[in-house]
Amino acid sequence: MSAIDLLYEAVEKKGHVCAGLDTAYDYVPAPARRSALNDAEAVLSFNKALIDALKDAAACFKVQIAYYEEMGLQGLRAYSETLKYIRNSGCLAIADIKRGDIADTAQRYAKAHYSGDLEADFVTLNPYMGMDSIEPWFKEANARKKGAFIIMRTSNPGMKDFEYLSLSNGNRLYHEVGDKISALADQQKSRNGYGLFGIVVGCTQRDEAEQIRKKYNNLFFLVPGYGAQGGKAADAALLLKNGNGGVINASRSIITAWQNEENSENADNAFAASCAYRAAVKMRDEILSEIKK
Amino acid sequence: MSAIDLLYEAVEKKGHVCAGLDTAYDYVPAPARRSALNDAEAVLSFNKALIDALKDAAACFKVQIAYYEEMGLQGLRAYSETLKYIRNSGCLAIADIKRGDIADTAQRYAKAHYSGDLEADFVTLNPYMGMDSIEPWFKEANARKKGAFIIMRTSNPGMKDFEYLSLSNGNRLYHEVGDKISALADQQKSRNGYGLFGIVVGCTQRDEAEQIRKKYNNLFFLVPGYGAQGGKAADAALLLKNGNGGVINASRSIITAWQNEENSENADNAFAASCAYRAAVKMRDEILSEIKK
Repeated sequence: MSAIDLLYEAVEKKGHVCAGLDTAYDYVPAPARRSALNDAEAVLSFNKALIDALKDAAACFKVQIAYYEEMGLQGLRAYSETLKYIRNSGCLAIADIKRGDIADTAQRYAKAHYSGDLEADFVTLNPYMGMDSIEPWFKEANARKKGAFIIMRTSNPGMKDFEYLSLSNGNRLYHEVGDKISALADQQKSRNGYGLFGIVVGCTQRDEAEQIRKKYNNLFFLVPGYGAQGGKAADAALLLKNGNGGVINASRSIITAWQNEENSENADNAFAASCAYRAAVKMRDEILSEIKK
Repeated sequence: MSAIDLLYEAVEKKGHVCAGLDTAYDYVPAPARRSALNDAEAVLSFNKALIDALKDAAACFKVQIAYYEEMGLQGLRAYSETLKYIRNSGCLAIADIKRGDIADTAQRYAKAHYSGDLEADFVTLNPYMGMDSIEPWFKEANARKKGAFIIMRTSNPGMKDFEYLSLSNGNRLYHEVGDKISALADQQKSRNGYGLFGIVVGCTQRDEAEQIRKKYNNLFFLVPGYGAQGGKAADAALLLKNGNGGVINASRSIITAWQNEENSENADNAFAASCAYRAAVKMRDEILSEIKK
């Protein structure tokens, strides 16, 4: 079964939460930090506790590689082990790596992130250099039953600088990206009607959400911007289709939920994981309740 | 001194060649492959021989991280060791990583690639998500005397898909990127008049080269597309300014030059390195001769 079908089924079963393991060392409770060999080991142990706690409340996990690269080679080992732990737990892993490069290089990247030490089920990709930077991934994804989300309209304020620019044909730049990924998706549909590759659509611009959902109805969405970035359940729900058609990413609001508790200075990984679970369940239920409205 | 000033001076001294260490395992001569512990070690030993041979013929080295990620964690160690070897040889290293992400993440990426295991002098960045994905790097680069090249108009055929699109204001998309990087460059000039951050401009579109060089005369260029991708010395020379103002990247045409020799099946690293040196010197001299025309 394709990765996108597996994700669709995970959403049916567990709801729409994509738990972001953008795990900075500071997010790890102090006792767990003290007992770890090094920063990267502390992050890895914390991640494992989070994955165990969240695996039934989150449809998938997204791992932002920047947080691991920041810790150098030890961090990259923790990144690799985190992906393995997610996949060995029967869950789906999105590698948030936002790669984009010319064809030969794209193929090497695809091999790197669809197999071996850095294997994930999905990656995120940047379309700026054109479709020949995306298509080698598509070919590899087809062969290996993997997927990707191409960044289309993101959730950061700076998205207005380029993504939002008006073109001479009346479109915005991001529409051109969406149109090309939508055409690519039609080449190879999954069982549930979505293309193997989806798009990243932030939930911080509510006004266009319904239009985007309608225009790209053959694409599954990865939705950032929830929680810490300001997006609400009602905004996110507008980007889902018939209740399934996207996952909503939240990171800090889940994995640092423990810091808002009383006596957080005494928190350990188990306590932090239980706080993360409650935060994810609350988010999941809020989204489900918005969809039913 | 800023990284861009160091690069300017390296070009004055050594010419315009940026040697691309996009080192696939297949590029390593067979005897060196056989004696290595693993693929990544073979690549690293080959890189060291290349760096020793090229350090006086190339202004800088560019390391494409995809080729190392393809070999997993061992590959990333070889990537780290390659960067260290370049910098310990008194040379400048460009990390071709094409990162681009929201502000918090960008800052972590900057720490990752401007210090520690993955430290380089320059990185390449992707502007799609907007200037808030570039500015945190600029701040870090200022503090740490580092630099970056932002991909503007690349050398691959797919660049027409998005980079080349016409905007409602009459510009192409890539002009908007160039304009914003040019404005950023004006905030903090180097001793030689260039901004700390430059742009990536492919040399495969000759028709616009003079216009681009003139329009962005405060920016230093990293120029891909030479050699294997079809760009010639005459095309590349159009993108230089008064003889200095850019480096021209070539990878395969330098590091696999040994494969075109007779008896290449008997080649070892030393022979391959001497072929690479001759190829780089030839390229350097062709460019210098075009500039003088």
